[in-house]
Amino acid sequence: VKIALIGSGNVARALARLLDHKRGEHPFGIAGIRRRNDSESLEEFLRRTNAEVLVELSTLNPQTGEPAATHVRTALGLGIHVVTANKGPIAFAYHELAAIARERGVRLLHESVVMDGAPVFNFVRNNLRGVRILGFTGVLNSTTNVVIEAMEQGASFEEGIARARELGIAEANADYDIRGWDAAVKTAALANVLMDARITPADVEREGIEGLTLPGQGKTVRLVSRAERGRFRVRREVLLRTDALATVRGTSNLILFHTDLMGTVGTISISPGVEQTAYGVYADLLELIR
Amino acid sequence: VKIALIGSGNVARALARLLDHKRGEHPFGIAGIRRRNDSESLEEFLRRTNAEVLVELSTLNPQTGEPAATHVRTALGLGIHVVTANKGPIAFAYHELAAIARERGVRLLHESVVMDGAPVFNFVRNNLRGVRILGFTGVLNSTTNVVIEAMEQGASFEEGIARARELGIAEANADYDIRGWDAAVKTAALANVLMDARITPADVEREGIEGLTLPGQGKTVRLVSRAERGRFRVRREVLLRTDALATVRGTSNLILFHTDLMGTVGTISISPGVEQTAYGVYADLLELIR
Repeated sequence: VKIALIGSGNVARALARLLDHKRGEHPFGIAGIRRRNDSESLEEFLRRTNAEVLVELSTLNPQTGEPAATHVRTALGLGIHVVTANKGPIAFAYHELAAIARERGVRLLHESVVMDGAPVFNFVRNNLRGVRILGFTGVLNSTTNVVIEAMEQGASFEEGIARARELGIAEANADYDIRGWDAAVKTAALANVLMDARITPADVEREGIEGLTLPGQGKTVRLVSRAERGRFRVRREVLLRTDALATVRGTSNLILFHTDLMGTVGTISISPGVEQTAYGVYADLLELIR
Repeated sequence: VKIALIGSGNVARALARLLDHKRGEHPFGIAGIRRRNDSESLEEFLRRTNAEVLVELSTLNPQTGEPAATHVRTALGLGIHVVTANKGPIAFAYHELAAIARERGVRLLHESVVMDGAPVFNFVRNNLRGVRILGFTGVLNSTTNVVIEAMEQGASFEEGIARARELGIAEANADYDIRGWDAAVKTAALANVLMDARITPADVEREGIEGLTLPGQGKTVRLVSRAERGRFRVRREVLLRTDALATVRGTSNLILFHTDLMGTVGTISISPGVEQTAYGVYADLLELIR
């Protein structure tokens, strides 16, 4: 199965290592890698490589979901499966893209979009069949976790951001995380896929941790994503330290799905990194050939 | 698809309600229910009902895994799929039973054996393909959670057990929970399926919470199941209250899988009950016809 790959960052390199490590266990081969400044059009690239799957790992413009959404739309329109670790297409254009995929009889898979490859979308699709997702609660942004923990250890807000940058977690423009936009993008992606919400990140009520002061003893703060039918929010919440949501630190993540038949159940991921994001892409590739 | 059902307790009743609630969405019908004192042999019962699936929900003898293991063995030997919510067969005889199922070309599914129907076995099978489970850490026994929480609120150990009985969580013989045998049975079931451990509960090192004294401020205790290759343990552990394991209360459960490719990732379930156990059985039935 021929893969066309867009992206040459950390996840793309980790995926190449993983495919190599697992060679002999899967039928995938990378037929071509498209980099940012290639002169060839995307359509030409996909046709030349004769790709059956596009793996989309380009850098996200978080305000628009581009150029990833266009990449995904183009590939699906050509009848090519898409696996993406890119939040943009799912947060900004899922309903439209899923319709193209259905029409062309191909799949759009995106496990690594939220929680770095831990089972979230697959959790619901594979393990909660016949279950209705009524809402969800998640702690999904790492930079804010790191800033809050640093402040609790005596650092300033700015030192906390610097620490998140040192760890390679925060973007150059940390406002994207701090003001809750990253969490809103993830919330929209989850809501679109799991609750057929048909929203964009702009439809998510959003409060960040800017200007944060720490709460009293026995309490902490997390940036929490909450969804229910018709209402989608990201906000900082004061939590008891003994709350499951409060135990999420660093790059760890937690999501709880509120359901009709299976109560409240979810996925926890401890300190994932780029290798786990790559695994999520690999899991999607395995799903394609199941 | 004709179901033969063994068991007439809470889970069996919840499953019957769920199948009725979802009628029209699945092809299952209950062809016969076997109760404890039926004079007909199990083999006669299965042949008479012409069952394609045995749903095994009998009462467990936790020391032996019987009579459930015999029920499962008989059905698989007749080429009948088995779905069970009964820990016994999986904890005491999984390797043998899985071999019979393979040989006869039928399936043995058991999602509800641990964590009341939350995705555990399905989580690994469906979502962690190609991943090796190196070990796991879990808080899997409810009675001990309730006893510890009651003691933290000022109750005695015995009052804690009484509270667990009131909640319908503890067995008549609460020693089964308190001394860690229930957790050892679950640990063996998980290890047998996910790590090919080929053990019984007697092979699990076991320490319960009998004679418990509470630790100092900021700490608590949980009965923790821990598995690594070649070593399987249940023991009480003093934990920081801010530890994810320490946030597990009442009937809630948490399991973390330690893996080669997907880091540490797992399932959390908040206050499940008999409806969720029934859903786990239903999910297994859906898996059969996928």
